[in-house]
Amino acid sequence: MCQLLGMNCNVPTDICFSFSGFQARGGGTDVHSDGWGIAFFEGKGTRLFLDPQPSATSPVAELVRHYPIRSKNVIAHIRKATQGAVGLENTHPFMRELWGRYWIFAHNGNLLDFAPPLDGSFIPVGLTDSERAFCWLLQELRHRFGGQAPERTDLFDALHQLTLEVTQHGEFNFLLSNGDCLFAHASTKLSHIVRQAPFARAHLKDQDVTVDFSDVTSPNDRVAVIATLPLTDNETWTDMPPGTLWWFEEGAAVKTLPTRPGPIKKPA
Amino acid sequence: MCQLLGMNCNVPTDICFSFSGFQARGGGTDVHSDGWGIAFFEGKGTRLFLDPQPSATSPVAELVRHYPIRSKNVIAHIRKATQGAVGLENTHPFMRELWGRYWIFAHNGNLLDFAPPLDGSFIPVGLTDSERAFCWLLQELRHRFGGQAPERTDLFDALHQLTLEVTQHGEFNFLLSNGDCLFAHASTKLSHIVRQAPFARAHLKDQDVTVDFSDVTSPNDRVAVIATLPLTDNETWTDMPPGTLWWFEEGAAVKTLPTRPGPIKKPA
Repeated sequence: MCQLLGMNCNVPTDICFSFSGFQARGGGTDVHSDGWGIAFFEGKGTRLFLDPQPSATSPVAELVRHYPIRSKNVIAHIRKATQGAVGLENTHPFMRELWGRYWIFAHNGNLLDFAPPLDGSFIPVGLTDSERAFCWLLQELRHRFGGQAPERTDLFDALHQLTLEVTQHGEFNFLLSNGDCLFAHASTKLSHIVRQAPFARAHLKDQDVTVDFSDVTSPNDRVAVIATLPLTDNETWTDMPPGTLWWFEEGAAVKTLPTRPGPIKKPA
Repeated sequence: MCQLLGMNCNVPTDICFSFSGFQARGGGTDVHSDGWGIAFFEGKGTRLFLDPQPSATSPVAELVRHYPIRSKNVIAHIRKATQGAVGLENTHPFMRELWGRYWIFAHNGNLLDFAPPLDGSFIPVGLTDSERAFCWLLQELRHRFGGQAPERTDLFDALHQLTLEVTQHGEFNFLLSNGDCLFAHASTKLSHIVRQAPFARAHLKDQDVTVDFSDVTSPNDRVAVIATLPLTDNETWTDMPPGTLWWFEEGAAVKTLPTRPGPIKKPA
């Protein structure tokens, strides 16, 4: 399996601290050594860094850890290959353009017998179930809403319906962003934390690194960090119940919808 | 205006030497300081590094200069903004997916009154004439050939017809690649060199750096380098006549077609 890391903020924020801990899991403190990638939105533009090498030893990961790129939406992924060989074309996150915006997608899980018809508008370049699911999601969104981006509420509802279909095929934890919102699906395992004033100190689980967020933030900053497993050992992370789709915007959870039968906890 | 750099090879080759000279022109030895970018194909995958900072001082450019990424097709661009503000979304090269392959495009020039109808299949994210032209090219290619990639000869002929239309709107020097071939349009200014055995020493124009290619190559290697202006001062570069579209593959010019009236020189 793989690990996911996402960040959604109300002001452009760098992810150097969280990425330090996450990077270590790619062949250092954990086994996800089949490549890694990270995408940063800066306005409507995106920077996508991909490396089929383990993140723990990747020169590109070193750059990302030390070069503070300020972004309101970030998605990162470290890979333990299940479907598709180790190679750049199978490395997450994936990027496509829809409605004049870039969309970024990363997946943790494994989909079985998921081979929906693709009409040619978005075709996978690699061989992963993940990229296939991403292409299908975008195809279906365009099919529903045509050439014009919908209101965000309608977008979230459509994404919810589509997620219900894909999730029948297996584990489908994912992060998806168009630079405005970050959508997160907890299929089996995902947790998050919202940091806001009063800011405190945080200590990484995977490296002996501490940051005092009160030194590097303004009082109105708000940052949601979403990860497969909590990245710090002295903060309270919220488990996202299996079978929940989340919409984050401006550093906060806006809405949650269930994706499997049964009672769903409300966002903290 | 901007500057273009492309490389097309018969074996995966790193571009560190050429990029060193090119990088210096982005705010160092020349004025193209409104951002830069470079895309590497590795098989069907691509790595795209973009930075709205001048390349001469960009930490990402430093990484690219020192991290030998081996690729058969590379496209780089340093920007002097004409249309579209300085910003990540207006930074070349641009990337889209068509027929399950990534396509990379960079442009040097300025197009006036080029506002063709776009059907929604590829929409610019930024505000440059360049990205608009790229989206239109891909839209028209898909329109002609449907869901299936054509034979390369048919692709080149279609690209030629489309280039004839765009070039009526102004300067349209461009590099375009899908990872198999590299297409280069000399609208006003472009030159190239093909390096093959016997390999010799080359010295950069923009930095005092020399490489002896015989030390770093095998006898069957062949590398075509295409640039707005020659990058070395002790080799013979071939000017590509204004009004010629070139198809490079496996490190050699395969075919050339005229894009303006008048006699066209044959590839060297």
